[in-house]
Amino acid sequence: MNKTRLEAFSDGVFAIVITLLVLEVRPSGGGGGLDMFLHALPHMLTFALSFVLVGVYWVAHHNMLHFVREADRGLLWLNLFLLLAVAFIPFPAALLGAAHADPASVRVYCGSLALVNLTGGLLWRHALVRGLLLVSHDQGEFGRFVLRLHLAPILVYAIAAVVCAFSTVASLVLVALVPAFFILPNPLVERRVRAAVQALAEVRREGGV
Amino acid sequence: MNKTRLEAFSDGVFAIVITLLVLEVRPSGGGGGLDMFLHALPHMLTFALSFVLVGVYWVAHHNMLHFVREADRGLLWLNLFLLLAVAFIPFPAALLGAAHADPASVRVYCGSLALVNLTGGLLWRHALVRGLLLVSHDQGEFGRFVLRLHLAPILVYAIAAVVCAFSTVASLVLVALVPAFFILPNPLVERRVRAAVQALAEVRREGGV
Amino acid sequence: MNKTRLEAFSDGVFAIVITLLVLEVRPSGGGGGLDMFLHALPHMLTFALSFVLVGVYWVAHHNMLHFVREADRGLLWLNLFLLLAVAFIPFPAALLGAAHADPASVRVYCGSLALVNLTGGLLWRHALVRGLLLVSHDQGEFGRFVLRLHLAPILVYAIAAVVCAFSTVASLVLVALVPAFFILPNPLVERRVRAAVQALAEVRREGGV
Amino acid sequence: MNKTRLEAFSDGVFAIVITLLVLEVRPSGGGGGLDMFLHALPHMLTFALSFVLVGVYWVAHHNMLHFVREADRGLLWLNLFLLLAVAFIPFPAALLGAAHADPASVRVYCGSLALVNLTGGLLWRHALVRGLLLVSHDQGEFGRFVLRLHLAPILVYAIAAVVCAFSTVASLVLVALVPAFFILPNPLVERRVRAAVQALAEVRREGGV
Repeated sequence: MNKTRLEAFSDGVFAIVITLLVLEVRPSGGGGGLDMFLHALPHMLTFALSFVLVGVYWVAHHNMLHFVREADRGLLWLNLFLLLAVAFIPFPAALLGAAHADPASVRVYCGSLALVNLTGGLLWRHALVRGLLLVSHDQGEFGRFVLRLHLAPILVYAIAAVVCAFSTVASLVLVALVPAFFILPNPLVERRVRAAVQALAEVRREGGV
Repeated sequence: MNKTRLEAFSDGVFAIVITLLVLEVRPSGGGGGLDMFLHALPHMLTFALSFVLVGVYWVAHHNMLHFVREADRGLLWLNLFLLLAVAFIPFPAALLGAAHADPASVRVYCGSLALVNLTGGLLWRHALVRGLLLVSHDQGEFGRFVLRLHLAPILVYAIAAVVCAFSTVASLVLVALVPAFFILPNPLVERRVRAAVQALAEVRREGGV
Repeated sequence: MNKTRLEAFSDGVFAIVITLLVLEVRPSGGGGGLDMFLHALPHMLTFALSFVLVGVYWVAHHNMLHFVREADRGLLWLNLFLLLAVAFIPFPAALLGAAHADPASVRVYCGSLALVNLTGGLLWRHALVRGLLLVSHDQGEFGRFVLRLHLAPILVYAIAAVVCAFSTVASLVLVALVPAFFILPNPLVERRVRAAVQALAEVRREGGV
Repeated sequence: MNKTRLEAFSDGVFAIVITLLVLEVRPSGGGGGLDMFLHALPHMLTFALSFVLVGVYWVAHHNMLHFVREADRGLLWLNLFLLLAVAFIPFPAALLGAAHADPASVRVYCGSLALVNLTGGLLWRHALVRGLLLVSHDQGEFGRFVLRLHLAPILVYAIAAVVCAFSTVASLVLVALVPAFFILPNPLVERRVRAAVQALAEVRREGGV
C-alpha cells in the first residue's frame, strides 16, 4: 500500500467525519426559529468541541505519517482501526448532544476519544518497532516523546470520566483542554518537533532517503 | 503542514458541506408527490441559496490560498476555524427551511454566514501580517483590498438581520445579492485581481519563488 | 481557477452525491427484517437507477472536461450550477422512492435530470463559444455533436413526463434507457469520440499544447 | 478514462461509504445516556463489522487495480457496478442493526456482501480476459488465484445465509471470519502476492512498462 494513497484515504475519512458532525445539529422542538435555535444549543456546543477534536486528531495523524517512510500490512490495518475510532465519533457526539447532563454520555464520549488516542499510539508504536520511520537512528528519544504525547490525553479523559460524576460541565471543560493544549502555541512540544523535522530534512539532503 | 494538503482537505470539506445541504430537502407532509414537492419548496430555495453561497466561499478560499506561500501553525488553525464555520452552515440552512418566515431563522442564518467571512478575514490578515504571501513587497494595497472585500458582506448580513424584522423575503434577497456580486462579471474586482495575479506570475518568472 | 482543481472538486461532489443516495433507503415499516426489506424495495430500485444516472453524468462531465484547455470565470460558475443540479438529485430520488406511483414524482425526477443535461449543455457551449477547448480548429462539427448528445436526453425525459400520466413504470423504463444508451457499446458515439481523442493526441504530439 | 482518476473516484466512494455507516448508530429509546448507549449496541456492532468489511473491500480493490495497466470502457462500468454494491452496504447494515435476530436481515446482509465480491470478481475477470493487466505473460495462474480469492467469500456468505436459520449469532461470526482471514497475517496469500508484486517490479525495471 502506497503511503500517499493511505494518507489521501485517511484525509477523506477525516474530512467526511468532521463535516458529518453537523448532521446531529437539527432544528427540532417545534415553535419558532428562536426556540429551535435554543433547543439546538447543546448540540451546537458538542459540534464545535467534536469538530476541534477531530481537527486536532487530523493534524496529529498527518504529523505522524510525515515521519513514516513506508506503510506495511500492519500499519495499513492499524490505520484502518484508527479511522474506525474516528468515524465512530459522531455517535458519542450525538449522545452528548441528546443527554449532555448525564454522566454516562460524557463517559461514552471520553471512552470514544480515548480509543482514537489508543489506536493512534499503537500505530506509532508499530512504525517505531518495525523501523518504518524515515529517520530510525537516534530517534528513539523522539519516538518515545511522540508516543507519550499521543497517549497522555487518555489520562485526561479518564479523569474527566470520574469528574463527570460531580459535574459534567467541569468534565467537558477538562476534555476541551486537550485540543487547547495542541492548538495554542506550546514551546515544549514545538521545540522537539522542530528538531525532529530538521533532522529529517538533513537526512533527506544527505541523500539518505 | 504542506499547503497542498491543506487545500485538498479544505476542498474535501467544502465539497461535502455543499452536497450535504440537500439532505435538508426531504419528502414529507404525506399526500402525493406534488404535495410533498410543494411542501419542500422553501427547503429547495434555501438549498439553492446556501449551495451558491458555499460555492462562492469555496472560490474565495481558493483565491486566498493561491497567494499564500506557505502555511504556518496559525494559518492551519485559522483555516480549521473557517472550515468549522462552513461546516456549520447546513444547520442554519435547515432552520431557515423549517421556519423561513421567522426573523430569528434569518438572523441565525446571517450570523452563521458572517462567521465564515470573519474567520476568512482573520485567515487573510494572519497571512498578510506574518508575511506568508507569495508577493509581500508593495502588496499592502492589494492585501487590504482583499481584506475589505472579504469583510464587506458582514455589513450586508447585518443590514439583512435588521430588515428581516419587517420582511424576511426582502432580507433574503439582500443576502442573495452577495453571491450575485461575486458571480456576475465585476470589472472593479476583476481588474485588481488580474493585476495581482500578473504581479505574482512576474515574480515567479523572475525566479523570486 | 486551475482545471485540475475544478475536476477534483467536481469529482468529490459526484462521489458524495452518488453515495448519499443510499441514505434514502432506510429500514422502516416495523415488522421483521423481511417486511422492512420489501418495504424498502421501491427505494432500492430508485437508488440503483439514480446511482447509474449520476455515474453516467460523472463520466460525461469527465469526458467534456478532457477536451477543455482552461477554465475561465464563466466555466467555473456554469460548472457550479451543473453541480447544483447534480447535488439536488437525492431529493427527487427520495420523492420517487416515497411515491413512485404518482406521476408528479416522476415529473419532478425527470425535470431534475433535465436540469443536469441543460447545465451540462450550457457548460459545453460556453467552452465551445469562448474557444476554451484544446483543439479549436475544425472541431466545430465534433463540438456540435457533443452538444446534441448532451441535450438529447432532455427530449426523452420530456416524453417520460408525458407517458407517466398513463404508466409510471413505462415512464421509468424510458428514463432507464438513457444510461443504457451510454453504458452499452455504441459504435456511432464511440467512433466519433475516438476520432476526436486521436485528433487531440496528435495536436499534443505536435507540441500544439 | 485515466486509471488514476478512476482510483481517486473509487477511493472517494469507499471513504464516504465507510464513514456514512455511523449514521445508522443513533441515540434513541429515550431515557438517559446509558439507556441510549445500550439501545445502540447492536447498531454499534453492525457498524464495526461493516466498517472492517468495507475496509477489506477497499484494500482488495486497491490491490486489484495495482495490477491493471489501463481502464477500458468495460472496466469503467464494471467498476461503477462494484461501487453501486459497495455504496448500498449502509442499507443492509441498518437493517441488521434494526432487526439483528431476524434471519431475513442476515440474509439481505450476506446477499449484499456477496454482490460486492461478485462484481469485484467480474471486474478482475474482465481485466484478465481483455489483457488489461500490467504483466500479462505467464500470469494466468496468479490471475486465477486472485479470482478464486475474490469469489471464495461468496461461499462463506451462502453458508452463513443457511446457518442463520438456526443461529444468527453463529452466522455473523462466520461472516466476521472473512475480514479476519484477510487482515490476520496469512503466509499462503502473502507469498503469492509478493511473488506477483516482484514480477511486476522486475518487468517495470526492464522497461517493459
